[in-house]
Amino acid sequence: MHFFSDNATPVSPAVMAAIAAADRADHGYDGDAWSARLDAAFSALFDTPVSALWIATGTAANSIALATLCPPYGGILCHEEAHIVVDECGAPGFFTHGATLMPLPGDGAKLTPQNVTDRLKTIRADVHQVPARAISITNATEYGLSYTPDEVAALGDLAKAHALGFHMDGARFANAVAHLGCAPADLTWRAGVDALSFGCVKNGGMIGEALLFFGDAAPARAAEAQRWRKRSGHLFSKGRYLAAQILAMLKDDLWLTNARAANAAAQALARGASARLSHPVQANELFVRLSADEAASLRAQGFDFYDWGDGAARLVTNWSQDAASVAPLAEALRALDHG
Amino acid sequence: MHFFSDNATPVSPAVMAAIAAADRADHGYDGDAWSARLDAAFSALFDTPVSALWIATGTAANSIALATLCPPYGGILCHEEAHIVVDECGAPGFFTHGATLMPLPGDGAKLTPQNVTDRLKTIRADVHQVPARAISITNATEYGLSYTPDEVAALGDLAKAHALGFHMDGARFANAVAHLGCAPADLTWRAGVDALSFGCVKNGGMIGEALLFFGDAAPARAAEAQRWRKRSGHLFSKGRYLAAQILAMLKDDLWLTNARAANAAAQALARGASARLSHPVQANELFVRLSADEAASLRAQGFDFYDWGDGAARLVTNWSQDAASVAPLAEALRALDHG
Amino acid sequence: MHFFSDNATPVSPAVMAAIAAADRADHGYDGDAWSARLDAAFSALFDTPVSALWIATGTAANSIALATLCPPYGGILCHEEAHIVVDECGAPGFFTHGATLMPLPGDGAKLTPQNVTDRLKTIRADVHQVPARAISITNATEYGLSYTPDEVAALGDLAKAHALGFHMDGARFANAVAHLGCAPADLTWRAGVDALSFGCVKNGGMIGEALLFFGDAAPARAAEAQRWRKRSGHLFSKGRYLAAQILAMLKDDLWLTNARAANAAAQALARGASARLSHPVQANELFVRLSADEAASLRAQGFDFYDWGDGAARLVTNWSQDAASVAPLAEALRALDHG
Amino acid sequence: MHFFSDNATPVSPAVMAAIAAADRADHGYDGDAWSARLDAAFSALFDTPVSALWIATGTAANSIALATLCPPYGGILCHEEAHIVVDECGAPGFFTHGATLMPLPGDGAKLTPQNVTDRLKTIRADVHQVPARAISITNATEYGLSYTPDEVAALGDLAKAHALGFHMDGARFANAVAHLGCAPADLTWRAGVDALSFGCVKNGGMIGEALLFFGDAAPARAAEAQRWRKRSGHLFSKGRYLAAQILAMLKDDLWLTNARAANAAAQALARGASARLSHPVQANELFVRLSADEAASLRAQGFDFYDWGDGAARLVTNWSQDAASVAPLAEALRALDHG
Repeated sequence: MHFFSDNATPVSPAVMAAIAAADRADHGYDGDAWSARLDAAFSALFDTPVSALWIATGTAANSIALATLCPPYGGILCHEEAHIVVDECGAPGFFTHGATLMPLPGDGAKLTPQNVTDRLKTIRADVHQVPARAISITNATEYGLSYTPDEVAALGDLAKAHALGFHMDGARFANAVAHLGCAPADLTWRAGVDALSFGCVKNGGMIGEALLFFGDAAPARAAEAQRWRKRSGHLFSKGRYLAAQILAMLKDDLWLTNARAANAAAQALARGASARLSHPVQANELFVRLSADEAASLRAQGFDFYDWGDGAARLVTNWSQDAASVAPLAEALRALDHG
Repeated sequence: MHFFSDNATPVSPAVMAAIAAADRADHGYDGDAWSARLDAAFSALFDTPVSALWIATGTAANSIALATLCPPYGGILCHEEAHIVVDECGAPGFFTHGATLMPLPGDGAKLTPQNVTDRLKTIRADVHQVPARAISITNATEYGLSYTPDEVAALGDLAKAHALGFHMDGARFANAVAHLGCAPADLTWRAGVDALSFGCVKNGGMIGEALLFFGDAAPARAAEAQRWRKRSGHLFSKGRYLAAQILAMLKDDLWLTNARAANAAAQALARGASARLSHPVQANELFVRLSADEAASLRAQGFDFYDWGDGAARLVTNWSQDAASVAPLAEALRALDHG
Repeated sequence: MHFFSDNATPVSPAVMAAIAAADRADHGYDGDAWSARLDAAFSALFDTPVSALWIATGTAANSIALATLCPPYGGILCHEEAHIVVDECGAPGFFTHGATLMPLPGDGAKLTPQNVTDRLKTIRADVHQVPARAISITNATEYGLSYTPDEVAALGDLAKAHALGFHMDGARFANAVAHLGCAPADLTWRAGVDALSFGCVKNGGMIGEALLFFGDAAPARAAEAQRWRKRSGHLFSKGRYLAAQILAMLKDDLWLTNARAANAAAQALARGASARLSHPVQANELFVRLSADEAASLRAQGFDFYDWGDGAARLVTNWSQDAASVAPLAEALRALDHG
Repeated sequence: MHFFSDNATPVSPAVMAAIAAADRADHGYDGDAWSARLDAAFSALFDTPVSALWIATGTAANSIALATLCPPYGGILCHEEAHIVVDECGAPGFFTHGATLMPLPGDGAKLTPQNVTDRLKTIRADVHQVPARAISITNATEYGLSYTPDEVAALGDLAKAHALGFHMDGARFANAVAHLGCAPADLTWRAGVDALSFGCVKNGGMIGEALLFFGDAAPARAAEAQRWRKRSGHLFSKGRYLAAQILAMLKDDLWLTNARAANAAAQALARGASARLSHPVQANELFVRLSADEAASLRAQGFDFYDWGDGAARLVTNWSQDAASVAPLAEALRALDHG
């Protein structure tokens, strides 16, 4: 059983069925019937008018969002371990034409209002320095923590006060919402978020994420994002196959069902490794202290995962699992301490 | 029956089956078993070592190819009606960081050695002018003409003589090869082509084209292209679903089978409209002179297509058709002249 | 006596004196007393509030102006022989992050409303095509013709109707104004121009041009241009030496005095070569038909100039000349026909 | 007497004389007699073949150097307080098309081999992460410390071992060489430096720095830098006025004479404030602890300078001073402690 990544899983059956159902002639690009339904579907989910685009990948969704929020000479406040900083080969710099990522510290890959405020104070207003123009956070974070609506809103207030665009990388947004049990609206636009990368692929999709814009500026930003999408080679000829997947994720709240399964699996593992956790488990990732011998022992029992620095490992659960299916690993973890 | 575009068709059954077969856990990105087979599959097809990448779209494949062949201060010789000029919202400028497209005239969207040579003569070597650094051609062209191996080689000789990279946009490469009956190698690397956008989506794929590099520089260019692919948000988390499609297209020469069907359909229509053709039909596109009344009459009979300027229309056939299935339109066209 | 270029001349004595007068300590960058006077000086000259920046070169002024008027995915309508197209090594593409120059034909390097309108009609509104977002003209043109206020206004009306920014490359703006005898305002903002590259170096300056913004958007565009100026390495540590030159050009209308001298020299030559002119002489450049033997004969008499294609030559006069000083060449030209 | 910045000073008389001497017609751009002498002049100074360009500003010199050393998807190891990080409004990101600055800590704005090595270890080789491709250091540093030849060579060895380009921002290179008393070659190419921004303006020049390339790749990099220089609007029409200044700085070692004067002035101040120094004084900058009252007292005596955070100030001396001329401030500083 592997716990490498939620990227490495198969596709949710309902998504595969939606792809098959979309397999007929329609207009090309995003002129098809499925793509046309995205705005309405997300507007319903978020209880506000939303402008939505399908996008190939989370990296592209993040970068295009940032390109609509930050000029080339601007800066983007973000966590120093954010995906946009460490795992996108500079994609935000490419799409924004050289905007500066401004990495900040923070426990569990979380930005705090204090850290943001401190950084803003160091920036002079003259043209010699890069002005901050946007904030980007990841929810759930790269360490599997979920910002609460209040925590997001505190950053949203700062963004508003300093005229910063506010982007949320929601590669695991579903896991955060499932964990928090809050309304999607409360975690986003009601808390000041302007743009959300709404992840699907880690949560059972095959290809395609959604990029959502909220608020009065949403239509204009979405129109610009459509230009970036085409200009960056992301306007698929047969976009209906992406739109259909996303709609399938939303139908009957499959996105939440899948996330809940992954989260439940993570909690089951957390119970097994409660003394070894580096971070609270608030989504579908666990970071556990493991000696080399312990890791070897687990692998010998058939559990695969990535090491995460010295003496630690990352375990990622996914939509195709649940508490029962990961029980063997939970037990094996427990046995390390109590065996 | 519609003849809008070969983008608007469903997916070839073998491709859909390959997607289903790939629906199991494997390593993410391009670390999976399917992606690992691309180099070998294309090397066999082209009878030379090939470095191959799956890429989301033709626009991305073209742009990434050009980014490996042309510096930001360079120019790309191409036809003034090339897809990269008129239908990619400036994507080549985005990926190359501002390289200059140098559009040239030519019948049927074909570059000629003479036109290339004439343009090269106008460029001074000083730093005030943009130096040509690459040639890009489309085969089959935007008007459905196929460059022969000799025609490509003549441009390839020019490219070599002037140290220009040589790119071929092969969105309809299959149609050209099927029409010419030549070896893929003869139409590409043996004729001097450095990089080929090998189209799949118009030919029965769902999502994903291949970008191929030939020659001694291929590994280095492919390594750079992998950086561009990630940096532009094109490295899919579950790349195996793209690789599987491409491999399915190559298996048992499905790519040629599909292209032959589309070409045969086009020839059937061409015979029906022989007096109305603006260009020879050498792939799966026809450009026919049609009055507004004639176009209306055809549409009333259930045939849909795009107007192409005043008094003309474009008809595109696709892999899911053949001579028999398009006979009704062929007959309707014939009836316009001989009715 | 050489007629290569108005770049190759020495510096106007008043400019040199201004440099010497600025040679004392003051605040760095553009925080000095001279830089602070630019807005007022140009506002007085143009009879409207102007936001003005000194800029290193005409290429930089043009490019930064265009970067404030056109997004990366936009296009800039311009003449196919415009300096921005043929002599700036792609600088507009660099500063605009890949915007597309849209070259148009036109006699004497002049854009016509008809040519602009015709080109606009070819552009579809969808995201596949690059939308026109700006017009750039050169006045006086690269062939020494001057657009009249009415001609500029006709293009300005088109710009307004299509929401296009309107830039004027005024490397030889002084020559145009001197020729037309019009108010600077009539040739620019009253005719719809948003941004003007106001040339100084060809007209007696050493280093430094002015970039001017007009209209309600001027302060915001100038603020953005200040970012681009710094970001592109153009914010000189000792900017006062540039500001002082520009102010010297404006003092007592030196800019017009210098341009009138150059224009008078050109007219003197034009009278000598009246049967050989390819274009009317409306500034300080002449394009004359000359056989190889005739060109050799003139050179043997000590007159130097550039060939301009086969059987033609370009003669450029400058601020340090006048009708009298170029009389020998005027006479030599006359002698070719009437000798 | 002000100690704000060495940017705020007048121009060295020999430089002004050189400008006057260059005030005659010659070929435009860099085709003049002065520009043609730069390579030889710097090759003599550095005892090796050097490819040299004049460049408008230090920011442009740094950025163009980096653009020749680092691809858009690469990273540049540098100090977190380096000028390229904090004072260039993202210019390196602009010229490199989005390369990532990788800021490192270090006392006195100095990079150490250990810090570089530690950072390199954190970078995975896969395409998800930005690979380091260059190192940039400032000598003398932003805190007025001078790297010794051995210290540079240790970084140069690292650069070579990891295939990193090696750039030195030498805005105050003259001050470093004057302080160290070493050969320019020992501090640069013999220590592995590939490209040097050779500062002139802070050291008595008016407008224009030099960008130097060393080693076998120098001609190719300089040729590319010439493209970037033009493309970024930095190729002045009358480049001879820049070249003449640079040549004047080199003649009779004016650059060292000027730097020695500034350094001597700094040492005189350092002796007066020996108990208050935050950093050793190894060039022409002092960072001194000063209470608000003390700072006010000094200002009341006519000494102007910038505060540098709480309870500290920066004092910059320049070429037009020497130990004697700054004695009043030295005395005033001494009086703060011993008055």
